Amino acid sequence: MLMNTPRLMERMKREGMDAIVATAPENVTYTSGFWAMSQWIRRGPQAYVLTPAEGRGEQAVVASTGTLDLLADQEVPIKDVRRYGFFAIESDICVDHDERDQRVSRMLDEEDCGDAVNALVSAIRDRGLDNACIGVDEMGIIPQYLDKLAVALPRATIKRAAETFRHARAVKTAEEVVRLRGSARVAELSIDAALAVAKEGATERELAYAFHAKTIAEGGTPVLGVICTGPRSALSSGQPTDRKLVRGDVIRFDVGGRHGHYRADISRIAVLGEASDKVKAYHRAIRAGLMHAYDLIKPGVRTADVFNKVVETVRKEGIPHYRRNHVGHGIGLDGYDAPNITPGSGEVFERGMCICVETPYYEMGFAGLQVEDMLHVTADGIESLMSTSSELRIL
Amino acid sequence: MLMNTPRLMERMKREGMDAIVATAPENVTYTSGFWAMSQWIRRGPQAYVLTPAEGRGEQAVVASTGTLDLLADQEVPIKDVRRYGFFAIESDICVDHDERDQRVSRMLDEEDCGDAVNALVSAIRDRGLDNACIGVDEMGIIPQYLDKLAVALPRATIKRAAETFRHARAVKTAEEVVRLRGSARVAELSIDAALAVAKEGATERELAYAFHAKTIAEGGTPVLGVICTGPRSALSSGQPTDRKLVRGDVIRFDVGGRHGHYRADISRIAVLGEASDKVKAYHRAIRAGLMHAYDLIKPGVRTADVFNKVVETVRKEGIPHYRRNHVGHGIGLDGYDAPNITPGSGEVFERGMCICVETPYYEMGFAGLQVEDMLHVTADGIESLMSTSSELRIL
Repeated sequence: MLMNTPRLMERMKREGMDAIVATAPENVTYTSGFWAMSQWIRRGPQAYVLTPAEGRGEQAVVASTGTLDLLADQEVPIKDVRRYGFFAIESDICVDHDERDQRVSRMLDEEDCGDAVNALVSAIRDRGLDNACIGVDEMGIIPQYLDKLAVALPRATIKRAAETFRHARAVKTAEEVVRLRGSARVAELSIDAALAVAKEGATERELAYAFHAKTIAEGGTPVLGVICTGPRSALSSGQPTDRKLVRGDVIRFDVGGRHGHYRADISRIAVLGEASDKVKAYHRAIRAGLMHAYDLIKPGVRTADVFNKVVETVRKEGIPHYRRNHVGHGIGLDGYDAPNITPGSGEVFERGMCICVETPYYEMGFAGLQVEDMLHVTADGIESLMSTSSELRIL
Repeated sequence: MLMNTPRLMERMKREGMDAIVATAPENVTYTSGFWAMSQWIRRGPQAYVLTPAEGRGEQAVVASTGTLDLLADQEVPIKDVRRYGFFAIESDICVDHDERDQRVSRMLDEEDCGDAVNALVSAIRDRGLDNACIGVDEMGIIPQYLDKLAVALPRATIKRAAETFRHARAVKTAEEVVRLRGSARVAELSIDAALAVAKEGATERELAYAFHAKTIAEGGTPVLGVICTGPRSALSSGQPTDRKLVRGDVIRFDVGGRHGHYRADISRIAVLGEASDKVKAYHRAIRAGLMHAYDLIKPGVRTADVFNKVVETVRKEGIPHYRRNHVGHGIGLDGYDAPNITPGSGEVFERGMCICVETPYYEMGFAGLQVEDMLHVTADGIESLMSTSSELRIL
């Protein structure tokens, strides 16, 4: 189970929601385990999960007929599936069908609801929720569909609910922590694979190729990140080019794909050959900031306090002019889950949160330096989800 | 230039729009060339492009301060950049900076607009458009931001504009056709790479690994698609598993990554060893449908007519019960651009459209068979963007 049901239910209660509808891919997968490829790779395809408050009924999935094969092929425990749209799937009547194909056939036997809104409305009505308060995740539903939903449910109160899901997702379930540890591991192995080809004359593209190929070989899905060398490492979102590595170059990774649908986001710095004194000193300073966060973070601590103390540490330890907008964020199905580790955040660390802590430093004409680890907040501190050190790697 | 400016301007005029705002990543890249990684890999990060109607002013880009390095590193011809948000980028004052770093510095010297909406509003006001009709692409802007925009521009009329962009994007510029040919080629080479490892005992995952690794090696970005074997090939969106290839298996590819930001979407079928008579006959039928589309499509022809004739051809040529929801769609920055080749579409093929034509057939207990080519509509017919044949490949 990915979903933190008690936390979501508690938040829905506080916001007076009788049911909540997931529409963005992260929230659909979160509440059901259903991974509907089309909505992950494009904006527009609609899949929803209706989750009523406790005692208000069972969950329901709304899926296009063309994605029923995925639903049948995945471990989705929700029985009520409302399909919409015509999609031709034939069946060879002369053979015995396996369980998956039988599940597809049963779902095809159900009525076509026409479109995603009709399907959702039918599920809401069948639970007697058509005069209730319905939270709708506003980030995945097409605006025209949200209008249509409001017209179809004139007695319902519809509230935006993306923030409700974001709150629930901040504290991870055990299964989510396992997946995040896996995604972190794949990212680390992919960095190792990229560094294995890092030699004089190797290009940023060659490093990126080695990185992503390893991510795929480990069963992950690449997500574009930053792999840049030399002065280009100072580009915060720089993309790989044909620039060739020369001795003394900084290599900056700010990377992480998906594994089991969960994101990684980690950073490491390597230097080809001898590192300059400035690189060594500055890297030491940003790493001191990260390591200080390891000591500070525990349940009940304010994220803003951690921000201030980490920045202060980097300043004291070697970069007096250090400035940042944040020194970290939650990580999960999205690369930026709650909480934010920012000066203005009112959030507090809670047991079960999984977070990235990072202290990047970008200086044009010099380099970009960055360390970023993934951590899991435990009862009395943190456990690292990393297997490798953030020390400067000299190649 | 990616944007089809005359077509966009003509449509804006017809809809009475004095300016149009791109918010979804596809439309931001389309109107400016600006590829803001964060909005491509997540939902939430905001980057916009304001494009006034002819004579109403120059274009403007709205970018978060953290993406200015990408803007400076890319070929974006728009001079008016409005940045928002604090993001620390330092500069080594002891070195001579290259042009890219100088561009970043100049943009950093401009005022921080605070947030994306303020930045957009300032660009609209400076062009005297605050009492005008502004089309806003509703698919990329956070709903709360759209509310805020309406409040900030009380005298403006705000219209949804995603469909306006979709219309403009349907007819490709020369540069777009070049990119689509490139993405199609990468997809074909990736299929070849996957088939090179297809032997008895090879798993779907191994084929998928070879496929995506080749996409990356060719400078592309993987997008998840379908690579399934044997009875699993009947799953329309099936994902690769550890299922091992056995002789007689169908291997179905419905695939295509990105190259130069443009999508590919193609399908091919191979069989390991001898194909059954049914596979051969059905493949021949669906391919006859595709090849008939080559003869039918030219400017002025209704997409619904092509749908009907292609389905009829597949029925006549060997699958009498053939049914489909569509036999193709446009392709470009999105995997499903206009037009739709559906029975209910009122669209007409136009010179410069780039389309996928496909005739998939899914039969549970048997297999999935599919051919899909990318085509470019010319003055008097089509040119194929493919280098390989859609014939059944026997391995």
